[in-house]
Amino acid sequence: MKARQWILVKHFEGEPKDEDLVLQEIDLPDQLNEGEVLLEGLYWTVDPYMRPYSKTYNPPITMFGEQLAKVIKTRNGEYPLGTVVLSMSGWRSHFISNGNDLKPISFDLGSTPLSYCLGTLGMPGATAYFGLMNLLEPKKGDKLILNGAAGAVGSVVGQLAKIHGCEVIAFVGDDSKLDWCKNELGFDHVFNYKKVDFSEVIQKVAPDGCELFFDNVGGNWYHTIINKHLKKYGKAALCGSIENYNDKEVKLYPSTNNSILAKELRIQGIIVNTFAKDWPKAFTEMNHFIREGKLKVKETTYEGFENMRSAFYGLFKGENTGKAIIKA
Amino acid sequence: MKARQWILVKHFEGEPKDEDLVLQEIDLPDQLNEGEVLLEGLYWTVDPYMRPYSKTYNPPITMFGEQLAKVIKTRNGEYPLGTVVLSMSGWRSHFISNGNDLKPISFDLGSTPLSYCLGTLGMPGATAYFGLMNLLEPKKGDKLILNGAAGAVGSVVGQLAKIHGCEVIAFVGDDSKLDWCKNELGFDHVFNYKKVDFSEVIQKVAPDGCELFFDNVGGNWYHTIINKHLKKYGKAALCGSIENYNDKEVKLYPSTNNSILAKELRIQGIIVNTFAKDWPKAFTEMNHFIREGKLKVKETTYEGFENMRSAFYGLFKGENTGKAIIKA
Repeated sequence: MKARQWILVKHFEGEPKDEDLVLQEIDLPDQLNEGEVLLEGLYWTVDPYMRPYSKTYNPPITMFGEQLAKVIKTRNGEYPLGTVVLSMSGWRSHFISNGNDLKPISFDLGSTPLSYCLGTLGMPGATAYFGLMNLLEPKKGDKLILNGAAGAVGSVVGQLAKIHGCEVIAFVGDDSKLDWCKNELGFDHVFNYKKVDFSEVIQKVAPDGCELFFDNVGGNWYHTIINKHLKKYGKAALCGSIENYNDKEVKLYPSTNNSILAKELRIQGIIVNTFAKDWPKAFTEMNHFIREGKLKVKETTYEGFENMRSAFYGLFKGENTGKAIIKA
Repeated sequence: MKARQWILVKHFEGEPKDEDLVLQEIDLPDQLNEGEVLLEGLYWTVDPYMRPYSKTYNPPITMFGEQLAKVIKTRNGEYPLGTVVLSMSGWRSHFISNGNDLKPISFDLGSTPLSYCLGTLGMPGATAYFGLMNLLEPKKGDKLILNGAAGAVGSVVGQLAKIHGCEVIAFVGDDSKLDWCKNELGFDHVFNYKKVDFSEVIQKVAPDGCELFFDNVGGNWYHTIINKHLKKYGKAALCGSIENYNDKEVKLYPSTNNSILAKELRIQGIIVNTFAKDWPKAFTEMNHFIREGKLKVKETTYEGFENMRSAFYGLFKGENTGKAIIKA
C-alpha cells in the first residue's frame, strides 16, 4: 500500500521554509511478517521542541514525532485489529511495526477525546504534572511564576497550580493568549511579556518574592527570577530554555549560585521520561479534573496529514493557542 | 570588670584591612541582675561566612560570631557556676547574658575536646553533615567533587563521603593541605587547584562525569562543574561562594539553566540552621566516628583573643588547615 511521510530535507535555518520539509509517497509491503502490525495514523502532534531537536539528526530523515495510530492489519497477538496506540514513529500516514515502539493508552480515557493523549493527557501534560507536583510541590498560597503560560505545558501547569491553591503570575506572548489565560483559565495575574518588563511587574504583584518558578524560557528569565524574585526556600523547575535554543555563542549572565545558597533554593530540571512509570496515575487524576471542568483543554486542530507542515510552522508564528493537533 | 570586644568599624571592601576591625575595652557592670550570668570566653571561631554576612549589619557593631564560654558568676538557676555553653554573643572576651542566647552542649561529648563544638561537632560540621547527607544523599560508588577540601566544612564532607563509599575528588589550595587530605584523610584524588586546571583534572579522573558536587567556592567552579562535569541526575549542594564574596562588580558567567534542564540536575543551597532540630543526632553520630578514628579533626589554633582578627583575615589567605579556633 501507499504511505505518505514528511521528509526533513535539511536543517532549518532562520524562518522554516516549505522546501525544508517535503511530503513523499512510499510503498509499504503488502504482506506482514509474523509479529508485525500495520498502523494508520489518526492524530499527530507538532511541538516546539522539534525545532531544536532536529539539529541532532542528519537530514534527509523522516521527520520524528509522536502519533496516535490504529492497528489496521495484524500478525501480533498483543495488538489486535482496531487497537489504538501511541508511537514515536514520526510523521507517517501509515507504518509497519514489530510492536516494540507501540504503547497502549495507559489509563481509562473514558469519553475524553482521544487526541488529548498527545497533549494534556500525553507528554506535555505529564511534563506539566511532574514538573509542578514532584519538583515544585505546590502548597496553598504559594506564588508561582510561569512563563510560556498559554502553551501545551504552561497552560496545564497554571491550571494544576490553581487547583492546588497557588497564586499564578503568568506570562504569554500575545493579547489573545492573555485573554484566554485570564478569563478562561483564571490565572491571577497575566501579562504580555512583550508589553511589560517582566521583572518590574513581578516586583509589583509579589513585592515579598515568590515561592515557585516553572521556567519554560530560560535565559534572562532564569537568572533574574532566581536572583531577584524567588524567596527563601524557593523552588524552580526548569522545563524549557527557548531563549537559549538558537544561541550561536555562549551568552553570559550574572551568577546565580550565591542566591541559590543564601536563599536555600532548590533548582531542578525536568525531563518527563524520568517519571514514566507514574504517567498512568497522573493521567487518571488529570482526566478526573478534565471531567469536572477544572482542567480546560484547548486544541487548535488542523485537518489532514498533508497540513502537518503548516501546523508545525504555525507554532513559530504564534498561530495556535493550546495544543496543536493534526487530524487524519 | 573590663571586657574586650572587636568592633567592625566599617564594611569590608576588597582585601580586609586592619582598620576595619578594632579592639576595644569596655566596662561591664559589677553587679548582676536577677536571672543574669557573667560569662568568660574559652574558645572563639572565625568562619568565611562572616565576611558576606557582615554586609547585613550597619557598622559600627560588635563583630558577631559564636563562642564557647564558661559561667563565672551567676544569678540564674539554669546556669550554675562553671557551666559551659555555646553563644552567638560575638567577638567578646566577657559578656553578661539573661540566658536567652545561651545553648548548653546538646549531645554527649565524652572525652572529645570541647573546642570541637565550634568545628566538626558544631556549625561547620553540621553544615557538612546535612549538606552531604540531606542534599546530596551519597551512595556507594558516587563520585563527589569537593573544593575547599581541607577546610572546616570540606574536610568533614570528604570524610563522611568516604565513610559512605564515595570516590572523593578533592581540591585544596596548597601542598601541605594536599598531603593531609591525601595521606591522612584518604581522599581518592587530591589536587592543588593553583597548580592544575581543575576542569582538566576532573575530566581525567572522571571522564564519564560525577554524581555529586559539594561547592564551597562558587564562581567559575560552580558554572564549569554544572555545565561540564555533573552527569545525568547529578546533585550539587551550594555551601560557599568564596570566589564571589569579595566581588565589587557583578561577574558574568555562562548560563547553567540549560545543563540543569537537560541533565535533570538538582541544585540546592544549604544553610545549616534549617536543620537545627537534627543537630544533636548528627553530632552523636559524628562523635562516634571521631572515637572510632574514622573522622579526623585538625584545628589551627590561635592563642589569645587579641589574635582573632589575624585568624579571621588568615581565612582569606588560605593560612589555616582544618578549623580555625581562637583560644583564650
